[in-house]
Formats: sequence, C-alpha cells, structure tokens
Amino acid sequence: MAEKVTIADVARVAGVSRQTVSNALNTPEVVRPETRQRVLEVVEELGYRVNLAARQMRTGRSGLIAIRVDPVSDGINGSVFDRFLHGLTEAAAEAGHRLLLYTAADDHKEIAAFEDLLGAHEPDAFVLTSTHHKDLRTTWLLDRQLPFVTFGRPWSELPDVRHPWVDVDGAAGTEAATEHLLAAGHRRIAFIGWPPGSGVGDDRRLGWARALAGAGLDPTGLSRETPDGAAEGEAVARDLLAGDPDITALVCASDSLALGALQVARSPNPAWHSEAYRRIAVIGFDDTPVAKAIGLTSVHQPLTEAAARCMSLLSRALEGSPPSHLLLPPFLVVRQSA
Amino acid sequence: MAEKVTIADVARVAGVSRQTVSNALNTPEVVRPETRQRVLEVVEELGYRVNLAARQMRTGRSGLIAIRVDPVSDGINGSVFDRFLHGLTEAAAEAGHRLLLYTAADDHKEIAAFEDLLGAHEPDAFVLTSTHHKDLRTTWLLDRQLPFVTFGRPWSELPDVRHPWVDVDGAAGTEAATEHLLAAGHRRIAFIGWPPGSGVGDDRRLGWARALAGAGLDPTGLSRETPDGAAEGEAVARDLLAGDPDITALVCASDSLALGALQVARSPNPAWHSEAYRRIAVIGFDDTPVAKAIGLTSVHQPLTEAAARCMSLLSRALEGSPPSHLLLPPFLVVRQSA
Repeated sequence: MAEKVTIADVARVAGVSRQTVSNALNTPEVVRPETRQRVLEVVEELGYRVNLAARQMRTGRSGLIAIRVDPVSDGINGSVFDRFLHGLTEAAAEAGHRLLLYTAADDHKEIAAFEDLLGAHEPDAFVLTSTHHKDLRTTWLLDRQLPFVTFGRPWSELPDVRHPWVDVDGAAGTEAATEHLLAAGHRRIAFIGWPPGSGVGDDRRLGWARALAGAGLDPTGLSRETPDGAAEGEAVARDLLAGDPDITALVCASDSLALGALQVARSPNPAWHSEAYRRIAVIGFDDTPVAKAIGLTSVHQPLTEAAARCMSLLSRALEGSPPSHLLLPPFLVVRQSA
Repeated sequence: MAEKVTIADVARVAGVSRQTVSNALNTPEVVRPETRQRVLEVVEELGYRVNLAARQMRTGRSGLIAIRVDPVSDGINGSVFDRFLHGLTEAAAEAGHRLLLYTAADDHKEIAAFEDLLGAHEPDAFVLTSTHHKDLRTTWLLDRQLPFVTFGRPWSELPDVRHPWVDVDGAAGTEAATEHLLAAGHRRIAFIGWPPGSGVGDDRRLGWARALAGAGLDPTGLSRETPDGAAEGEAVARDLLAGDPDITALVCASDSLALGALQVARSPNPAWHSEAYRRIAVIGFDDTPVAKAIGLTSVHQPLTEAAARCMSLLSRALEGSPPSHLLLPPFLVVRQSA
C-alpha cells in the first residue's frame, strides 16, 4: 500500500495552509473560487483518497459503515470478532470509509438501532455478523433496499433472501480436522459441539460427520452437545472418554471447548488404560491466541481476508451491482495436541 | 439497566407509525406540528434516550466519539484494547453516544485523521489510547480546545498538558506481584520488561524495583529488556536462569513475555539443580484469556471500569467541567504459575 497522502501534503503542494485545504473541501463558500480549484486539482493529483468530507460532497454519501459490537464474551472465542473488526477497520480505511459502532441485544433492538443510525448519521451501509435462522435484520434491510453485507451466510430457509455475504466454510474445517485424525490412524473420533439450531454449530458438526461417513465409520454415540465454555468442554470430554474406552480423539466446535477437553486428555485417569489417555488427540476451532499458547491444533479462519472481502462486496453493492457471495476455505494449524 | 426504549415503543404509545416518529425527529417539516408535539411528549415521557437524531437537533452535537483502532497485533496483548473497546462501546451507548473508528500509523497521521473526521463527521470528542512521551496528539487537541480523554496518563514532561485521563496503575500491579512472591519466600526475583522509554513499560519496571527496595533487596543484574513476544520472553528467561542459579521467580511486563518465560520455567534443564526449576514462579501482566487458559498468575486491569470512567470524564468535559483524572488500581489474579 502506498504511503497515505495527508491534508498536510495537499497543503504543501497547493501552497496553502491546512486550514485552507480543509475549508476548500468542507466550507467552500469561505474560500476564493480559484483557491478552491487549485486545492481540488492537488487533491486529484496526489490521489488524496481518504478525505471523507470531499467524498461526501461529491457523492452525497457519509462514508460511514455501521457494525454491531457485543459486550465482552468469555474472552477466548471473542477474539474472532475482534480480529474481524480490526481487519474491517483497515479494509474500510483503504476504501475511504470509516466504521460506526452500535450495540443491540437482539434483532428487534438492532432494527431500532438501524433506524436511529439512519436518522442520525446516514451510514452508507451495514455489516452484519452472527447471522442466524429467521434473521429479521436482513429482511428489514432488504425491504428498504439498504446496502449491507453479512459476515456469515444467510441461514434462513426463505428463498428470497438475496444479499452479499462472506462466510468461512466451517464444515470444510471440521472435515479437514477429522481427516487429519483419520490419517493419523484414529478410528473412534468424537465431536463436542453446541446444541442444534445454530447454523454455525450445525455446520461444524456436519463436516465431522461427513469425514467419518467418507471413511465408512459409524458416528453413533460419538456426538455431544453443550453450551460453549472450557468447563463445559471438560465435563463433556470426561463423560465421553469414561463411557467409551475406544475413543482416541476429540474434534471440538471451538477452542473454548477444546481447552476444557484438553485438560481431560492430558490428565491421567485411573479408569482408563494407562497408555490410552496419552493418545487422546484434541482439535479446536478458531485458532485463537489461546490455541497457539497451549499447543492446540485448531481450524484457522482467514479473518483478515474475510473482512477485506466483505468490504469489496460492499463497495460493489454501493455501486448497484447484484449481490454475490463468497465461502472462504479455512485451514488446519497443526500443533502438539493432534 | 432498564430495558431500552425503542422507536417502536414511542410509535405505539403516540399512536403513529415508526416512520412518523422518525420524521418528527429528523425531518419535522414533513410532519404536522401537533403530531410532532405529541411524538416529542412521548419521547420525553418514555425517556427515549438514545435517539441520536433528536439529541443532535437539540444540542447541535453529532453524538459521535472517535477512537483509533490499530491493525491486529500478536493476538495476546491485543485483547487489552479489544476489551476496552467493547466496554467503551457499551458505556458510550448508555450515555447516548456511538463510536466512530479510524486508523492512523503515527501521531502525524492521527492528527490528519482528526482533521478529516472533524470535517466529515463532526465527532463531539475523541478517546485516545497508547499515550506516550511527546504526544503530539494531545497538544493538537488542547490547542483547538477539542474535548477528549486519554486512556493512559500523559507521559509528557510538559507542564501545560492538562486533560482528562484514566489510567491503570501499572507500578502498583507489578509491586503487588513482587510482594506476592516475597510473601511466598522468594528472594531473588527478576523482571523481564520492554526497552526503556515507553511510559507503560518503565512504570511496570518501577513497581517491581519498589517492592524489592521495600524488602531491602538488591535489584542489580535482575532486570532484562526485550521487545514484546513469547519467543523473546523465552530467550530472556533462559538466559537469566542459566546465568543466575539463585533466581526463583520472574515478573514479566506482559502475558506474552510470561508465556515464553513459563516454557523455560516448566521445562527441566540439566544445567539446573533438579529441584530448582520446579520452583521458578512466573507472573504476567494483563490477565489475558491466554493467562487464564495456561494457569498463569497475572495482573488484571479493570478495563470495563476504565472504559466507563473514560466515558464519564468525557461527558463532564462536554459539559465544560475542568479536566480531572483517575488512576485505577489493578489486582493480582493468582493461578498455578506463582
């Protein structure tokens, strides 16, 4: 990326003060027409792209993109959204946009927030995360023809939900994780995931089941459901391993669950065959900083790329292009745990 | 916190459509005066606080607070900013404000970003993080009498730098960490920190030195400097422990450094007395999710409180109150590592 051109650069080349540049762009009535002309020429010449004020005047757009931020979560999986947000802030800046944050506890509150935002700040577009079944937000925005992109595919059953989206292929991730274990000789591989109904969670379970089916293995009794969390993962792993001495590997829907499972996998348990517990492999999902720190093999989501792709689909939407979408492949980061 | 009143609630009570409520607040000229009056009464009655559009009209303010977001860091220490940002988004929402994100690579670019932002979106105030020596940003904002608060104290030597700030007392944190080790019987306690010159890093070293001095212990040869990172922490810890067989504990300026140090502390080293390596205690700083996951004792910064305090100091600044500041005490979270 080229060095960013600043208002100071424009001022220097145009031979005027920064205040004059600012005035020429924001309050042209206080600047002489010839000075304004000169400033605009230099803006063009230097490619001074990120001046939102100038762009707003030219395009009638605010340059703002709104995105929801939730309260701090357990701190492990929350890093996924945070990495996406950092990436999106960068990608937006490169496209001359800035992010506007809002909060909302559910779809209804989020729609109320849309109304507030549209009335107060006129964002050009929205980026929605945490898409889910019967997502009222996307329907509301589509009805009003407001530009948006979702990070997360539309899980809705409605056939008319057509909007740009970017997602990571979670099923491909758990499938790769399970195939990695199969290649290492594991045959009885269990899955620890979330209760059914969440699109993301169901998708991750699907990839594990697909890999087992591909190897001609029976998944019966090998899938467990629990709310997310390290303590939850530990309890379920303990139960699974105590109840089925043939299990040698665990694929988990998140690094939080895997962190808990790893406590069990690494602790000697007198009820197990003394050699067995050493071979319990564990794989997580999201490749969080915690996974790196504890040597947990985990599925990595390309979040910086996802953010950049969201931004480019949004730019196309703002130009009126028909919606397109993108399913990005994740990849497995192999460490000590599997 | 009471359930948030939405525009839908106002519409229902006023007996009008949501569009009419929105029009009454944003484009009153298209609404009959008696309707507008009715809507505003209901807004008042229900305490519909977060309607930025209405507030903007009333106060001439945008309701926007700008804050810089940096590219993703190593992922361990970055969680500190992210937790602060989540907290600030919540605190801002409760005060009827929203956050506007921007990027900037250095002070000069950040000042250029201020100019862009002021021209394009008229933020009411700024929240600055990563304060440092000779901080050009605070001087620039003070010169223009623009409201702002810093998360981080002014490290500048300039006597005229007077602005609201919130910070966490890092020295008190490392002092508490070192005292915890002293109470456990450790006498030769080393410090792994960053190269001198960063206010935050120097402050954290100070607390360790203060605790040693308080116990009448000599710190000579016990302080090391390195750029941040787990690999860096590991290398320095290895060097320290190999060179001084009496060291039994390490206080680190970050969880990244401590994570590396812990690899050394937990690995048997034939050069050491076989019992000694088991007693190397390690303490980190920031109480990141990684610290929790690996059982690392660490100094916890009250980030949600810091964010809420930043917001309240900012509200006071917007009311024209003289600047005040707040140094919040951190606390030690004791886990297995020390």
